[in-house]
Amino acid sequence: MLFSSPMNNPTSIPFDHIRPVLWEAGKLKLIDQRILPGKFEHIYYDDVTAVAQAITDMVVRGAPAIGITAAYGVVLAARTHHQADVDNWRTNIVANLEHLKQARPTAVNLVWAVNRMQKVIDSIEEGADPEPVLLTEAGRILQEDIAANHKMGAMGKSLLEPDSCVLTHCNAGALATGGYGTALGVIRAGFAGGRIKHVYTNETRPWLQGARLTAWEMVQEQIPVTLLADGAAAYLMKQGRVQWVIVGSDRIAANGDVANKIGTYAIAVAARHHGIKMMVVAPTTTVDMATASGGLIPIENRSADEVLTYGGQRIAPQGAAAWNPAFDITPAELVDAIVTEKGIVESPNAEKIAAMMAKK
Amino acid sequence: MLFSSPMNNPTSIPFDHIRPVLWEAGKLKLIDQRILPGKFEHIYYDDVTAVAQAITDMVVRGAPAIGITAAYGVVLAARTHHQADVDNWRTNIVANLEHLKQARPTAVNLVWAVNRMQKVIDSIEEGADPEPVLLTEAGRILQEDIAANHKMGAMGKSLLEPDSCVLTHCNAGALATGGYGTALGVIRAGFAGGRIKHVYTNETRPWLQGARLTAWEMVQEQIPVTLLADGAAAYLMKQGRVQWVIVGSDRIAANGDVANKIGTYAIAVAARHHGIKMMVVAPTTTVDMATASGGLIPIENRSADEVLTYGGQRIAPQGAAAWNPAFDITPAELVDAIVTEKGIVESPNAEKIAAMMAKK
Repeated sequence: MLFSSPMNNPTSIPFDHIRPVLWEAGKLKLIDQRILPGKFEHIYYDDVTAVAQAITDMVVRGAPAIGITAAYGVVLAARTHHQADVDNWRTNIVANLEHLKQARPTAVNLVWAVNRMQKVIDSIEEGADPEPVLLTEAGRILQEDIAANHKMGAMGKSLLEPDSCVLTHCNAGALATGGYGTALGVIRAGFAGGRIKHVYTNETRPWLQGARLTAWEMVQEQIPVTLLADGAAAYLMKQGRVQWVIVGSDRIAANGDVANKIGTYAIAVAARHHGIKMMVVAPTTTVDMATASGGLIPIENRSADEVLTYGGQRIAPQGAAAWNPAFDITPAELVDAIVTEKGIVESPNAEKIAAMMAKK
Repeated sequence: MLFSSPMNNPTSIPFDHIRPVLWEAGKLKLIDQRILPGKFEHIYYDDVTAVAQAITDMVVRGAPAIGITAAYGVVLAARTHHQADVDNWRTNIVANLEHLKQARPTAVNLVWAVNRMQKVIDSIEEGADPEPVLLTEAGRILQEDIAANHKMGAMGKSLLEPDSCVLTHCNAGALATGGYGTALGVIRAGFAGGRIKHVYTNETRPWLQGARLTAWEMVQEQIPVTLLADGAAAYLMKQGRVQWVIVGSDRIAANGDVANKIGTYAIAVAARHHGIKMMVVAPTTTVDMATASGGLIPIENRSADEVLTYGGQRIAPQGAAAWNPAFDITPAELVDAIVTEKGIVESPNAEKIAAMMAKK
């Protein structure tokens, strides 16, 4: 059942087998996440416009993963424009970079990664080939992300009692990051360390990231996983079957409010009602100190068709409208712990987030 | 867009156009709810075993509708056995009646309807043809159900402020009853009376009754409806977009605890968190005074395939398990009003439910 060839264990860390974004033979190589788990296929990119479209179309998704993808998109843009016009490439890629930043609105990692690449662009000497140095920087972003996930995994794990059962939502896994995952990084580390014995995942309508991607990752790693309809999560909690909810984030505001996949707020409300703890796991690249609170985070509204249809099959009648926000905001008050690579922030608020971000 | 022929307005009540269970030319006639909204087709039954299977397979679903269907199933059983053995038909149908009662476990209406038909069977004189009198009784059950829904619609409406927006879950509509609906009966009456201006419906995974059936009913009646993923309901509430949650029930315990479609408990928790009111609409045939509290109600666990697949397509990887309870229990404390044809019970508890049930 394991796809062995593309997942040779890239580190010595257990359960770390999946890499959704790689650079290979001069091209960006993405796992096509739209067709998992039925098909496991890669798509190769050498054109930045196609990369931006891949982000919009969710070939790749997950805040850290789209940041890394955008960084490699900058490499491709620089190559193309440098080949076309050695003198003016720096000016000519500006539109591509803006386009990348706007490929999806909610995750702040996209803007963060492009801005970080921009700084390197600004430092490149006149006449030098930009590709090697930009490629090095994109590779650093990727490796730093994976390293952050390993760190967060170890820290998040420390919050769990032995043999816990946990619930997750959407996919904050290897597929959503450079590898290993944020929420699923904690779950991987927790399972490896005996803190987690079973994982429940909401299927996560409308895009079914839980059913398609999180369940797939868990099966690949042979971590026991049970899928449930999103509406069943509160009843699962009522039955005492889970001790923690563990999720990722697409953007964390300066006060600790958390934007994450639609449905996260519902489980945060239910978790609080049942006295179950809520952990949000995300690298500091997801923390947006320029956004004071969750109400200021732009929420992407995606096509009604995602709710009205599935796999090209219409499920709702003609004449019905649909409301399809891709994300929601969980207020900091409902979050018990935010875990970043810089540390654990319990009962988050603006002061604690600022102190955490100020750490070296 | 309206299916005009099968929905000629059967009463003078506005928005009352749909009849899922009818007796026609000596046969039971069901709308096949498994294929709505793509196809609108009827299936005819003259065999009680096939009727029980139709209930199990959800050709017809909804607590009152399966009760009515079972009553007509008793008519068919009596006809068959009376034709086969005039002297022993009463003994010979016992197994069929047990089979009908057990076609699905959670809705109490099934047992209630078969028991009511049994009383008529017991009263039939030796040698008499049982079909006419049983058919009359089944027709009474159907007509009383529709009349109860009209009454509940008017009462439930009275709880709403003008121009309210409401959220419903699953399908407690005409399709779930003899006609008009319980929750959707209140919504129909509310829309007709200017109390409701917009209806939101959760899609209701895994069986998609909200997307397929409730949205379809609303479109048929030209009542404005917006569909959302189940996980989005709490965020909808947070935005102040709905003033009431209105749902049906499959069984109400003597203390006011409510069994209803999985996901109901999640929205009850979210509604309370946001100060949004929760109304449960069900006829007294759904109230089970023999069951003291919700914890004693048997909850049907349906096939994992309902969660692992979507619209007939596999969505989850091989190797993933699924948890698929068809119903959950909402404790009476989270319910603001239970509406039956005998009246409105606000903040339900055992005493108030008993007093309501004792009314003539």
